[in-house]
Amino acid sequence: MELTNALCKIIQSLETMKGRKQTSLFMAEGTKCVLELLPAFELEYLIATRQWLDDNKNVSVNQDKVIEAGRGEIKKISQLTTPRDVVAVFKIPTDSVLPDNLKSELVIALDRVQDPGNFGTIIRICDWFGVHNIIASFDTVDCFNPKVVQATMGAIGRVKVHYVDNLSETIRSLSASMPIYGTFLDGENIYKAQLSGNGVIVMGNEGAGISDEVGRVITSRLLIPPYPVDSETVESLNVSMATAITVAEFRRRQF
Amino acid sequence: MELTNALCKIIQSLETMKGRKQTSLFMAEGTKCVLELLPAFELEYLIATRQWLDDNKNVSVNQDKVIEAGRGEIKKISQLTTPRDVVAVFKIPTDSVLPDNLKSELVIALDRVQDPGNFGTIIRICDWFGVHNIIASFDTVDCFNPKVVQATMGAIGRVKVHYVDNLSETIRSLSASMPIYGTFLDGENIYKAQLSGNGVIVMGNEGAGISDEVGRVITSRLLIPPYPVDSETVESLNVSMATAITVAEFRRRQF
Repeated sequence: MELTNALCKIIQSLETMKGRKQTSLFMAEGTKCVLELLPAFELEYLIATRQWLDDNKNVSVNQDKVIEAGRGEIKKISQLTTPRDVVAVFKIPTDSVLPDNLKSELVIALDRVQDPGNFGTIIRICDWFGVHNIIASFDTVDCFNPKVVQATMGAIGRVKVHYVDNLSETIRSLSASMPIYGTFLDGENIYKAQLSGNGVIVMGNEGAGISDEVGRVITSRLLIPPYPVDSETVESLNVSMATAITVAEFRRRQF
Repeated sequence: MELTNALCKIIQSLETMKGRKQTSLFMAEGTKCVLELLPAFELEYLIATRQWLDDNKNVSVNQDKVIEAGRGEIKKISQLTTPRDVVAVFKIPTDSVLPDNLKSELVIALDRVQDPGNFGTIIRICDWFGVHNIIASFDTVDCFNPKVVQATMGAIGRVKVHYVDNLSETIRSLSASMPIYGTFLDGENIYKAQLSGNGVIVMGNEGAGISDEVGRVITSRLLIPPYPVDSETVESLNVSMATAITVAEFRRRQF
């Protein structure tokens, strides 16, 4: 196979949601990200320099999917400022049905998180802290956006993202079997609150926070207190920071 | 005053370290960031649309510093993909001497943190958790880099960054009066470790972590445990995530 102009166009189209929907493909770049995703997703193309292919001979890859290309060619399909020596194109998995055995797990729910870097970071945090499922409102940024994929550093291969049409309804149905947490500026100090080992933790949009509709199904409102605790909170924490601190605190209780 | 071509060039030069050194100026964009920095730094220019100036009449600004400009003109000097209606240019403060009364405080030290977004986020975390001083190795990214300033969302006005020529020496001299902490993959579980209310917390470079030289002056090696704690840690946490979780844990002990 070669990197034809037609194939270049397909890969370039993966930057947009439209392109990914039309092709059911997504892309990842760089050795670390590609190697971590190879065992997790079905490979469609692996485009790499001769040097990279020589250096990674021990990696198990269907040779029919491999395309050798020069750095100049890779530059044409790369989404990065500094293109790497390898780009992989994978099939977007279709099995995104919400597992029905979630009730003993810790699950993150995202209400319209918009920034790809934030979403990627949240997926990385979930990976670190053993959170295997994320429920995302339909209007959360696409987890196969190349910027999200890169920001996960490969963690997208180990954490499942389930998009749902109606986040508040989905959470409401889960609330029968597990507590629903969210962080709010008027919540209860998370360090003093009762936290369970299972539950849904809802994180909101970067500007608007958690929507009123989703807020109504939250059973436990938490606050990450500033220090000192009575300081005037002119600021709020970024959503990925808040996720890191919240999930860490849930897990700390389980040690 | 008007936004002359010469002034445009000066402001455009503030994207680079060289430009900031030559002029001793830095820039900030957008209402939130500009309004938070106005009380903290000496204003040199405030460039804004008529509309913005009308909407912010109550803001106390030396009118000699104000330049009205159209959106097209602001676009020329903006570093943002989506320019805002206001750009402020401030003097870089010269008083960056390390305070000598640090020993009762919690201080963050950064060993060659390179990514502006990470540094900005770390400054924002410090602001939230009442950490007022950051010590940075000379080769840490410049805190007046516009990408850092924007990522702080204004917190750079409340947290002081002190660059030092020799980070390990600076930390060594502090170690006489306070403990020195750092996070390592082979450290002690932070949730079980003794943490004091004062101390220096060292965070390392994105790829290389804490340098050997700086590592040698650390008195307490900490680990943020993954979950479950014995899981294979193929990943590491991003430096700003690790800072968030670490500082949160120090402050939690003080509540």
